[in-house]
Amino acid sequence: MAVENASGRALRVGIAGLGTVGVGVVRLLAENRDILLQHCPWPIEVTAVSARDRRKNRDVDLSKFDWCDDPVALADHPKVDVVVEVIGGSGGAAKALIERAIAKGKHVVTANKALLAEHGTALARSAEQAGVALAYEAAVAGGIPIIKSMREGLAANRIEHVYGILNGTCNYILTQMRETGREFADVLAEAQQLGYAEADPSFDVDGIDAAHKLSILTAVAFGCEVDFAGIKISGIRNVSAMDIEYASELGYRIKLLGLSRLIDQGAERRIEQRVHACMVPQNALIAKVDGVYNAVVTQGNFVGQNVAIGRGAGQGPTASAVVSDLMDIARGRILPAFSAPADTLKKIPAAPEGSHVGPFYIRTMVVDRPGVIAEVAAIMRDENVSLESMIQRARSPGDRVPVVFTTHETSQAQVSRVVQKLGKVSAVVEPPHVMSIEQLS
Amino acid sequence: MAVENASGRALRVGIAGLGTVGVGVVRLLAENRDILLQHCPWPIEVTAVSARDRRKNRDVDLSKFDWCDDPVALADHPKVDVVVEVIGGSGGAAKALIERAIAKGKHVVTANKALLAEHGTALARSAEQAGVALAYEAAVAGGIPIIKSMREGLAANRIEHVYGILNGTCNYILTQMRETGREFADVLAEAQQLGYAEADPSFDVDGIDAAHKLSILTAVAFGCEVDFAGIKISGIRNVSAMDIEYASELGYRIKLLGLSRLIDQGAERRIEQRVHACMVPQNALIAKVDGVYNAVVTQGNFVGQNVAIGRGAGQGPTASAVVSDLMDIARGRILPAFSAPADTLKKIPAAPEGSHVGPFYIRTMVVDRPGVIAEVAAIMRDENVSLESMIQRARSPGDRVPVVFTTHETSQAQVSRVVQKLGKVSAVVEPPHVMSIEQLS
Repeated sequence: MAVENASGRALRVGIAGLGTVGVGVVRLLAENRDILLQHCPWPIEVTAVSARDRRKNRDVDLSKFDWCDDPVALADHPKVDVVVEVIGGSGGAAKALIERAIAKGKHVVTANKALLAEHGTALARSAEQAGVALAYEAAVAGGIPIIKSMREGLAANRIEHVYGILNGTCNYILTQMRETGREFADVLAEAQQLGYAEADPSFDVDGIDAAHKLSILTAVAFGCEVDFAGIKISGIRNVSAMDIEYASELGYRIKLLGLSRLIDQGAERRIEQRVHACMVPQNALIAKVDGVYNAVVTQGNFVGQNVAIGRGAGQGPTASAVVSDLMDIARGRILPAFSAPADTLKKIPAAPEGSHVGPFYIRTMVVDRPGVIAEVAAIMRDENVSLESMIQRARSPGDRVPVVFTTHETSQAQVSRVVQKLGKVSAVVEPPHVMSIEQLS
Repeated sequence: MAVENASGRALRVGIAGLGTVGVGVVRLLAENRDILLQHCPWPIEVTAVSARDRRKNRDVDLSKFDWCDDPVALADHPKVDVVVEVIGGSGGAAKALIERAIAKGKHVVTANKALLAEHGTALARSAEQAGVALAYEAAVAGGIPIIKSMREGLAANRIEHVYGILNGTCNYILTQMRETGREFADVLAEAQQLGYAEADPSFDVDGIDAAHKLSILTAVAFGCEVDFAGIKISGIRNVSAMDIEYASELGYRIKLLGLSRLIDQGAERRIEQRVHACMVPQNALIAKVDGVYNAVVTQGNFVGQNVAIGRGAGQGPTASAVVSDLMDIARGRILPAFSAPADTLKKIPAAPEGSHVGPFYIRTMVVDRPGVIAEVAAIMRDENVSLESMIQRARSPGDRVPVVFTTHETSQAQVSRVVQKLGKVSAVVEPPHVMSIEQLS
């Protein structure tokens, strides 16, 4: 499994993409050179790079590297043993480069969660057949070595579930909303100014980025094929300052979580994957992970609960993850991408829509008039939804007032029917806002 | 690096010690057999075992394993490729077995922190020379894959410091003391009844077990030789219910931490290793790690802060760690024990006694009479110790009352001089209790 190269004296790296991450990798390899030399059997050297604009000032010395205008050319470059793909995107140049590199028998290190979410299983299979690494520690949870932990450190366990805060932008926005009482749009605009959110924020705030990462964690956790399409995804646009206040009052925090669970009923196995804003008990460890930090919680049948927390994005953490993959390759440590060989990855069907069962938070806005609460409560009763608590305040006849319910264990399908019926009640003046309550510890 | 064995069809394991951990390994290998088969190139099979009492009922089927009365015989057993040493102790049979196994070219997996703390560097060197693994994930922080995280996942970083809750017994006792207001001796007795503390608790409550683990983390973090003797160690026997109350009042929690830091002043490099009870801000993540959980926090120059939390002991977590090491060996993944080759491990001197600088908590018990506070305050002033706060309460002339000070940045040496002088003040009726305040985030 050792790396072969012409000189035999270095692991030679070609980097495709010189944005924040690519430049971070160049910087790390230079600044921590002594550390790497102590730990690796041979030096890790950048030999070639590719990016869109050759003249852009990137504050690092690129003069010693060969320049390829076409990133795919890195796969054919004679002085490249490993391709680092940090271009991004689920197709285009990134995909072409990785496929070409594998075809040429070169190792691949990537930070590209979108690509793995869409094409992970197929790429893992090709890499295995070619005997090369497809490594992607940087794709999930930034600097947290969670892929290594799950694929190796916790690999002896039957994983029961995995969940986490997988998107730093959303976590930053929700933290700011809670700390300042401001609304989503306002905090998003500020996050964009500060560079914590993209100009087009939808990949982050609509939960897609978190879902990409969750699909990868799921495959590693359960030894199954990547199933991004099987994830139920929603984001944080609908979380209001009012919900955050109610969450605090009820003893919860609101987090965007990705949650994945194996439902094993004998012959019937299903995977439930969800990405959405939800309430978690304010004393749960994950409730305390704020700002741009990510966290991943795994539950294994022998190890119990493990929690890993760290920076989810940014130049330093991502470069740390990319170079740890390069070190694994230099050390001859190559495993199947999703831990189990691609041919053994199971196809486990997604749990059917609406099957999730748990407590829920339902906030309605009603015109306060006699009989409204009775009408709403009757709908809950008719759908067999058992209430755990109700909050109504600031009543003054004719006002629009929020009425908040929390339920005992209820299926998502029941809650959906309740919401549909509530929409037909004339006193209910806007669509109810629903969030699951996750009783995490 | 692949494992060689006669049959070529299995990784054959000999387990020395059939206490909680050894039995856990047997159970895990049986119960999670399907998981292991999916992830490993060949089965991991126990072939031989050794323990003191052959007839003891251990609730697992041992009938298919060869029995060795002498654990060291496992090293010579023809059907053993890997020895799992879970006897414990820094010498005796454990040491003899490991040395013999290495000499016979067999891999070693151990949970023995005492042995590695005392003899780690030498054993690492022999294992490397013999080309075998010396793996010990279970020795530090139980089920948390912290050795793998640091040795591989965060290996690209210059580690600045590492600290953690490394002893679950102490953390359980301190958590109980806080939650119930009871005194140490009382809670310890209960923990012993519940099996959370040993009959002879001194390894745990005096900080020695945590120091064993810290010495190993330090070697991995800084690429240096294991230096257990260089650790300043104290435990939790002196923590009183009163200190815990004051900690809460001041916004802190009391934790037994192991802390290790590289002090790099150009040519002058020192390592500061400390194990002691200390105060941490109650909003720091580590303050929220309660009960039998362990936590390790690392700070790397690129990755920033990483936190790993999990169960620090017990059958399941320890077996999970041992088997993850076995899987690494089965997968042909063998690294130098402390990540860097033994010959490159640096000898970095310990920071001199008393050199630690930070804020401190000092609690004195005084007889309340006019002028006492002035006298005590004058001692602080004379030693240039700058006070951050003072708490004195429940005064009634002639009473014994606690007087609590917290200081600004002060050296341990200054604080020691203050304590010495306080001991000579007649109104100070018992030795002052001192704890460092660690401003962690």
